[in-house]
Amino acid sequence: MPIYQAPLRDYQFILSELLNIYQQTDLRGFDEIDADLTDAILQGVADFTTDIMLPLNASGDLEGCKLVDGKVITPKGFKQAYKQYVEDGCATLTCDPEYGGQGLPEVIGTFATEMKTATNMAFAMYPGLTHGAYSAIHVHGSDELKQKYLAKLVSGEWTGTMNLTESHAGTDLALLRTKAVPAGDDLYAISGEKIFISSGDHDLAENIIHLVLARLPDAPEGVKGISLFAVPKFLVNADGSLGEANTLSATGLEHKMGIHGNSTCVMHFDSAIGELVGAPHQGLKAMFTMMNQARLGVGIQGLGVSDIAYQNALVYAKERIQGRALSGVKQPEQAADSLLVHGDVRRMLLSQKSFNEGTRALMQPTSIMA
Amino acid sequence: MPIYQAPLRDYQFILSELLNIYQQTDLRGFDEIDADLTDAILQGVADFTTDIMLPLNASGDLEGCKLVDGKVITPKGFKQAYKQYVEDGCATLTCDPEYGGQGLPEVIGTFATEMKTATNMAFAMYPGLTHGAYSAIHVHGSDELKQKYLAKLVSGEWTGTMNLTESHAGTDLALLRTKAVPAGDDLYAISGEKIFISSGDHDLAENIIHLVLARLPDAPEGVKGISLFAVPKFLVNADGSLGEANTLSATGLEHKMGIHGNSTCVMHFDSAIGELVGAPHQGLKAMFTMMNQARLGVGIQGLGVSDIAYQNALVYAKERIQGRALSGVKQPEQAADSLLVHGDVRRMLLSQKSFNEGTRALMQPTSIMA
Repeated sequence: MPIYQAPLRDYQFILSELLNIYQQTDLRGFDEIDADLTDAILQGVADFTTDIMLPLNASGDLEGCKLVDGKVITPKGFKQAYKQYVEDGCATLTCDPEYGGQGLPEVIGTFATEMKTATNMAFAMYPGLTHGAYSAIHVHGSDELKQKYLAKLVSGEWTGTMNLTESHAGTDLALLRTKAVPAGDDLYAISGEKIFISSGDHDLAENIIHLVLARLPDAPEGVKGISLFAVPKFLVNADGSLGEANTLSATGLEHKMGIHGNSTCVMHFDSAIGELVGAPHQGLKAMFTMMNQARLGVGIQGLGVSDIAYQNALVYAKERIQGRALSGVKQPEQAADSLLVHGDVRRMLLSQKSFNEGTRALMQPTSIMA
Repeated sequence: MPIYQAPLRDYQFILSELLNIYQQTDLRGFDEIDADLTDAILQGVADFTTDIMLPLNASGDLEGCKLVDGKVITPKGFKQAYKQYVEDGCATLTCDPEYGGQGLPEVIGTFATEMKTATNMAFAMYPGLTHGAYSAIHVHGSDELKQKYLAKLVSGEWTGTMNLTESHAGTDLALLRTKAVPAGDDLYAISGEKIFISSGDHDLAENIIHLVLARLPDAPEGVKGISLFAVPKFLVNADGSLGEANTLSATGLEHKMGIHGNSTCVMHFDSAIGELVGAPHQGLKAMFTMMNQARLGVGIQGLGVSDIAYQNALVYAKERIQGRALSGVKQPEQAADSLLVHGDVRRMLLSQKSFNEGTRALMQPTSIMA
């Protein structure tokens, strides 16, 4: 199994030495934490990711998600691991305390995302999308919508998704055709098909809140006629309990290399009941809160995957013997020297290490400004 | 299904205009051919690859090879296609007429390899490795060995493999441990395990001739103590008929992305009977005839895959609509312009096209010198 050492010393260096962050009293969330608390929190995430998530990475990818009778079954071990993730409060770190979050600064969330992605990107995408849905509703949703959904999304008991792409409309969302028809009581009936929906269906959580871009009947053409809707897998009763199943389903699983443990779904909405997030025809603006967070998240994913790749390349370069150093035999007790003696191997490893450390340092000013 | 247009006009241009090759009477194999014959042969290969090999590419990759009771079963359709490949004489193009080859110049083989790789690289690797084994025996084998094996390798009735890598010895062949022990009558008993053996076992041909690097008991250490052996799947009787099964087998299938239709095998040799190819301890030199041909072949594979990728990217860029041209609407009858109107898309496509055409032209002087 690949090894993983969470880069905790790097995190400390970036926060304390590079950014001198504990002196920056005007930054949100820093008034209540210090280096000791940050270290303890990050150590907790390091333990969870290394002990629980990493062992499920390869097995989850080999087994993959399965679509059985319209329901997605995640790989063995994911359900139990996600239960512990929720119970340990991992989902709540940077969320608003009003809805049960810990209100920690975004730097903590960024480092946590790096560790989660490094150890198991497929698993990490379930709470990753959830956090984006939380943010979009938090910024753009009505008070009623916030009361209905945020606490459950913060805890991780429910998860979220991002429904933009249709088979004929990718980057060019102006072309999307999914329709929303008023259904009374500020409700709408959503119909259409979305593709490439990460975490679209699964068995990890009781409910899934789909954020779906669609057009109202009176919508102008193009991107100025797109609205955003929150469409739950199960309708939610007034007392917060789950009601009947909404008329939506995953109709297919799509292939994404290396993340077969995440359910990439074709989602079919058949007059599914949803509510507006933000104003009519202003959906793209609301969705951009989620999309921009996803964009930053993809950058962090790149770092996470690159760092665990580097760590294991380094182990291999030390263990694997091949040829002799140009400058003369370095390990005469072995039949050949380790790969590490070769200059070009060292150059490649140092390039990886430099890119990773540089990226890690660059991420944080971005997350502070976000 | 992906489209493929064999670049026959490019081939004509390179041969007639760029290299003026039909005037180069001192080049091997050109004294008996002219542009019409070359065109007809390349058209034949274009038809076979496009009509027979291309339709089996995706299905072969999805189905993959299977290892059942120690025998590899190739994907549906491969066996029939390979039978036709042999019957049509596709394997014989550039081989020595003394052993049934057509004696055509290597330029023909290079273009044929490009078309075969573009349409179905997994399938193309079965005859590809065979041609390398043919070359190594042709250059380094004894007359007896040539009589025994070459005609069947030229026709494609038997196929060949290249056995170098062991799990602890990749690039550094000095470390290899497979042993060869004299077994009388110029025969040797070969024992060891090889990995990543392309086409290591399959159901396409009656016999498979494994070229295997191993050490004799008195071998010096390092690369100067490596010998090359021809080790058949089935022993060959004096009259050329097949005898009993040799003591070797595929014990596992390995994963190589995109070529699941080719059997990448772990091969286990258990005192399997083989004969020397070339002199004792001179095996690496003999194997380099095969390895260098494989290296040139991998370059051609890169071109083949790149060209079919380009051809299909171009189709997609014309069909898929997305956004509007910066310089104004180009296709007002559509809801959006095609991808092709975007400058950066055109730049990427033209880069692909330029690399492919340049590579195709550069390959031929290399193959003429080879």
